[in-house]
Formats: sequence, C-alpha cells, structure tokens
Amino acid sequence: MERFDAVDLIIAKRDGRELHRAEIDWLVDAFTRGFVADSQMSAFAMAVLLKGMTRAEIRDLTFAMIDSGERMTFTGLGKRTTDKHSTGGVGDKITLPLAPLVASFGVAVPQLSGRGLGHTGGTLDKLESIPGWRADVAPDAMIAQLQEVGAVICAAGAGLAPADKKLYALRDTTGTVEAIPLIASSIMSKKIAEGTAALVLDVKFGEGAFMKNFARATELARTMVDLGKDAGVATSALLTDMSVPLGLTIGNALEVRESVEVLAGGGPADVIELTLALAREMLSLAGLPDADPAAALADGRAMDTWRRMIVAQGGDPDAALPVAKETHVVRAEVSGVLTEQHALAFGIAGWRLGAGRARQEDSVVFGAGVELHAKPGDTVAAGDPLFTLHADDGSRFERALEAVDGAYTIAPEGTHFAPRKLIADRIS
Amino acid sequence: MERFDAVDLIIAKRDGRELHRAEIDWLVDAFTRGFVADSQMSAFAMAVLLKGMTRAEIRDLTFAMIDSGERMTFTGLGKRTTDKHSTGGVGDKITLPLAPLVASFGVAVPQLSGRGLGHTGGTLDKLESIPGWRADVAPDAMIAQLQEVGAVICAAGAGLAPADKKLYALRDTTGTVEAIPLIASSIMSKKIAEGTAALVLDVKFGEGAFMKNFARATELARTMVDLGKDAGVATSALLTDMSVPLGLTIGNALEVRESVEVLAGGGPADVIELTLALAREMLSLAGLPDADPAAALADGRAMDTWRRMIVAQGGDPDAALPVAKETHVVRAEVSGVLTEQHALAFGIAGWRLGAGRARQEDSVVFGAGVELHAKPGDTVAAGDPLFTLHADDGSRFERALEAVDGAYTIAPEGTHFAPRKLIADRIS
Repeated sequence: MERFDAVDLIIAKRDGRELHRAEIDWLVDAFTRGFVADSQMSAFAMAVLLKGMTRAEIRDLTFAMIDSGERMTFTGLGKRTTDKHSTGGVGDKITLPLAPLVASFGVAVPQLSGRGLGHTGGTLDKLESIPGWRADVAPDAMIAQLQEVGAVICAAGAGLAPADKKLYALRDTTGTVEAIPLIASSIMSKKIAEGTAALVLDVKFGEGAFMKNFARATELARTMVDLGKDAGVATSALLTDMSVPLGLTIGNALEVRESVEVLAGGGPADVIELTLALAREMLSLAGLPDADPAAALADGRAMDTWRRMIVAQGGDPDAALPVAKETHVVRAEVSGVLTEQHALAFGIAGWRLGAGRARQEDSVVFGAGVELHAKPGDTVAAGDPLFTLHADDGSRFERALEAVDGAYTIAPEGTHFAPRKLIADRIS
Repeated sequence: MERFDAVDLIIAKRDGRELHRAEIDWLVDAFTRGFVADSQMSAFAMAVLLKGMTRAEIRDLTFAMIDSGERMTFTGLGKRTTDKHSTGGVGDKITLPLAPLVASFGVAVPQLSGRGLGHTGGTLDKLESIPGWRADVAPDAMIAQLQEVGAVICAAGAGLAPADKKLYALRDTTGTVEAIPLIASSIMSKKIAEGTAALVLDVKFGEGAFMKNFARATELARTMVDLGKDAGVATSALLTDMSVPLGLTIGNALEVRESVEVLAGGGPADVIELTLALAREMLSLAGLPDADPAAALADGRAMDTWRRMIVAQGGDPDAALPVAKETHVVRAEVSGVLTEQHALAFGIAGWRLGAGRARQEDSVVFGAGVELHAKPGDTVAAGDPLFTLHADDGSRFERALEAVDGAYTIAPEGTHFAPRKLIADRIS
C-alpha cells in the first residue's frame, strides 16, 4: 500500500481538496492499526464535517472501512437476502414485526442490530426482554437459521468494519457525529460488509430523530442509496416522520408486546403502516413486488415465523414479559383534542425511567418505559389517562415527568388537527 | 470554576457560536489537566481554524493559556522592559545584535527564545555555537543580568503557559498550525506571561516565512497587536519581507559571525536596516523615541553590551566560532544580474547541511550552513562565487544542492531589477 502523511491528508481535506482512493485507503488502514492517532482522526473528522466529501470520497471511505474487517456472504444460501436499517427513533420497534413478516415470504432477512444509547432504543435490548432470547448467534448458526426460519435478528460480530467502530467512538466525543459523509459511510460500511443483496433504509426526520431537518435527512438518504448502488446492493429509502413517538409504547418489553400485537393482526395504525411499507420495499427489492404483506399479518404466517425466530435463538415466545414494579398514570387535565406529543421528550422520559442507557456499559430495565393511551388527533376527556410511566423504582417518575412537561398539548374540542404524513418520501 | 461539557463547546465553535470567557477558561484548564482529551482539543482546533474566533474569544483564549502557568514580573527592576518576537525566517539573526543594542540605552531586554525546527533557525541554537554560552538562566540570575547588563537571551522556563505547549504539540500533528487565533494566542500568551511591558513583533511574510501571504501576515500582526494592548503591553508590529534570506549567512555560527559584524558597525545592509528599525520601535515603546541606535552601533556601545551579555551567560566572546569541516562553492555559470534567491530553498539547504533539526530531540551542527556571496540586485560575472555550502559531512552537499536547484536566477546584464521593500508596513 502506498504511504502518505496523515498531516498532509488532514490539511488537504481542511483546504477543500478531494482525496484520492489510495489516500483514503491508507488513512483508514493506518487509523485502524493505530499509526494515525485519535487526535489526527478527530481533526480529520471535523474537517470532513465542515468541508464535506464528494460522492467518490464517501464511496472510497465506505469501502476502506469495509476492507478494515471481515465480509460476510450469503451467496450459498439459495435465497434472496434483504435487510432494513433505521436511523433510529422513539418507539421504533419496526424491526421486530418486519423481519419475520418479510421472511415469511421465503426471503432471508439477516438483521444485524445494535443496542440503544441515549433516548433511542436498541433492537437487541428489546428482544432481550424475552426470557431466554440470545443476541449472539455464531456465523454457522446464522446461516442455518436463515435457511430454516428465514429471519435472524442478532448482534453484529466485532469483525465487521472495525475502522468504523473506532471512528464512531471517537466522533461521539469530538462533536463530529453530524457529518453526513461519516454517518452514511458508518451505516453503509456495516450493511455492505454484512453481505445483504438488498437494503431498505428508514431515514427518520423530526425532533425525535437524529436528523431534525427534512432536507438533511433527504441528503443522508440520497447519499446512502447511492453508496448502496455503488456497492451493488439494491437499495432504497423511505423518509419517515419522527416528530411523535411511533406506536403507543416506548421501552423494551412494552415494545415487544406491541410488536406481537401487530404480528397478531392488531396494533397501532402507524406501526402497521410503516411495517407494511417497509415490507413492500424489501419484498420488491427481493424480486417479489406483488407480495401482500398485509395478508401475512392477517393469516398468521408472520406470527409463525416470529415464534420460530424467537425459539431458534433460545427465547420462549409464550413466556410472560418483564413488567415494571411501579406505574404512574398521567391524566388529561382538560377535555379536547391531543394535538402535540413530542417524540424527543417522551424518548427522554423512557430513558430516564430505565428503558435506555447513558453509557455503553449500563444495563437497561426491561419493563421500564412509557405507554401512551392517546395519540395526536385523539379526543380526550378531562380525567382520561394520557400515558402511563413504568419503572422499577418510583423515584424515577419525577425526572421523567420533568422531561414531558410541556411536551403535549390538548387543544379545545373542534380545533382543526392536520395529521402528519408518516411516510414523507421515497428515494431509490 | 463553572463546569462545561467538552463536546458542547466543540459543537458550539463548529457551528459558529462565540464562546464565553467561562467556557474558554474551563476548556483550557480541563485540557491542561487532561480531562479534555487530545482528540477533543484537536477537533476544537480544527473548528477554530475553519470557523475563526472573535477578538474577545482570542483574548480569552490567550489569558486562559497564561493562567495555566506562571507569570513573570520585572516591575521591581527599576528599568523599562521591552522585548521582540519574530515569527521566524531564513537567516533571521536579528535578535543577536538587537537585544544588546537596545539594552545599551538602559532599557531591559528579557528575550526568552526558542530552538529551531525545520528550515527556520532558533536564536538559542545560534548563541550556543559560542563556546561556553548557556541558554538556561535561573530567574534570580536573569533579574541580576537585566540589572547589570540589560539584555538576557535565554530559554523560556517550562512553567510559562503550559497549556500552549500542550496545544502547540497537538496542532503540529493535526493540521491545525495555520489558524491565526491559535498562532496569535500561542505567541502572545508566552510573551505576556513573560512580563514584558513593551513588545515589538517582526511578522514576516513571503515564501521563506511561515505566512506566505501579506494579507494573512497583516491579519496576524493586527490580532497580536490587539492582544498585547488588551493585556496592557505596549505592542507594535513591523511586517517584513522574507522572500530572500536575511543577510548573507544561514546557519548558527555563520549567523553569529554576521551579527558580530553588525555590532562592530559593519554587516549586510538588510540586517542593519531591520535591526535599526526594530531597535527604534523598541526604544520608542520604552519611552525613548529620540534614541539613535545607529550611533550605538557605530561607537561600540552595542558591542560592549553584547560582550557583557555573552560573558554573563558563560560564553567567551573572543573564542573562535565552530567552523564546518568541508565547504562547497557554487559559482555563476553566466554573467548578469542576480534577480532571484528564494529564501525557502536556501533555508532548506541550510537545514539539510546540518544547521537545523528535523525533530525536537535532534542536535544541530554549529558550523553548518550557507554563506551567500551575492544578493538580488548584485551584478555577477561568470565564474564568480554565488554561495558556499558549509557542512561537517561532504555527503550532505548533494541534497542541499537539490534544494537550491532553480532557486536563484541570473538575468542578462541590464535587466531592470526592482528591489523589494524590506519593511512593508507598521501596525500599532
């Protein structure tokens, strides 16, 4: 490999020059091996954030991060593979019903997921609230499960894109998280290394999302879809609203319960809508544009795959889920129409109740979270329950209530309420 | 001290917000103590480089760096103190004749200096070529020498602005050297902490200088003069051309020899011009606007102070200076007018001959360097010596000659030559 000087490359990016592939390859490799210091990579990341990267640079960065580790392959599987990635939101449990739903059509869904940090939950944390369920699946077992069940939701091995892991940790403490080239390459390097043939991105915008702004979310979606195509992965993205919590539950076991409701043919309208929209995207990319996922929810095929998926990873789909020791109900003080329910505030409340973690090494409280009894657009009467807080430790209620103070509005009855469109755009 | 979060402050600067004094104080203090990581400070430095700082922020940063260490004071001295700082150039030995010249008027010149790195030499390296001379002077001895001799040129103690030392080392490896707020605060924090009442800055521009560009050099000068004033130090700056080497010598002992020539009333015209201009600035800031430094060079007063200054620090002003073991003369191939002599190329040649160091821990070869026999504007005949390379090891000549290849031009006789103005501007 050609050798470069880290300072030269930092200065080039700082001064707005496009870096060549050999330069990016060297930088990522040298950083992964420790020859480029954290202080140098963080200065580089800040320069990228403020100066941007071209499509070619982002592609080269993504491929360099992929090349820093292992690459999985499912070509021997004899099934089409398709995966979904969400940029994260409040109450976003969609992966849980979605993976078995799509797999019920004979498509393989190798869903490598993560744990939550901050106010957005993690898919693995949610599933771990199911007694016995294990997130760690060995590569061989993963292949077998994809063959037999079709869906696997499990932890990514440490071998995928280690450069990304190292860079991500650094970005978190250096104010360089928000750079679109770095976000896109971080997500896509893992997804491409994972070896899926098709990928649907759920890029969220609005105050409960990582990207507050629709234009920035669109740019991120466009960047990632381009990256997927450059890597030969059939990729599309939905831009979805995250200004109110998704569904009626926030918190690990609470969200599993709601996911099971959806798989049983019920559940909240928004969760069903998004699950079906993403399922249609995934099935379409997998070559089944005429598949009818709503039928698979209605007739129990999706639920059957869910049960087999949970069992395959040691879980008991019939076991009782953890329940928080204490609850606190908040009721409407006046009658009227619920017009606002801020996702971020409710996400923070759930986090403070124990559903999320502040540091990577913290553990989560499975039963903790927020259960919503009304959603924007609903009419409520004074005294009706609006939401219930769940926690093992009642002393947590106070700070959770502080978080949601002013985060919901009940307007006089007859106030016109224009519902937000959940799926704002599609990029392919 | 109020507490802040490093990531918040990095993001604020990255997004273009002006930081408050308490925030900057905290950041510098926490960085000095190791609570803010190098990776965080380098991301911050990159954000400063790309987003800039206001005058108030630069002042707060400078004062925070001063507060990270000791502050010297010369108020008990009964003499006015004045100091000079040069941003560094090729053949810049001006401090050597200047400090004793100014001191010969009864002004105290506490000149804390550094060693060279790269193609620009360091004042201490030059003086250390004088047998017996010591750069380290204890605080008490420094006061005594200022009292008795008037001039001290010595190494800065480690206690001055430790935050600057730590940040400077980091900037060097992270592509953040060129930020004017960081350059200005780095220089001025040390100079203000040093306790001088007056300060003259020699801000160089042109290809042999750190600032190639006149406009950027002017901005740096303006920033530093403002900083000096904000700290109650009488400060002015000269903007001086560094596109050709200063004087006829580059290299430690060679430059001492030339400095002694100037102190003896001779020496090259440009070195005399700049020495006198800076002396007039310093004397004027010290309350002696009518002092005549040219007279002090002519009548031996400056030389007398030089000799006493060298003796006070253990040196023998009459000892023979180190001489390089080998020399290589380069002659004019054609007759004509010497029109170009690129400072950077000759600086690099001197460095490669052994006069400079590549890493902090290297040592310099005192006798090594370049001796110029003609300067731009001079008429030369074919076969005349143009310059002589000096080195202890003749194998160094080849790479030094590579450095100056194409770096000088002999134009046909009669070609119009417009000499550059050495002192381009004055800022106060």
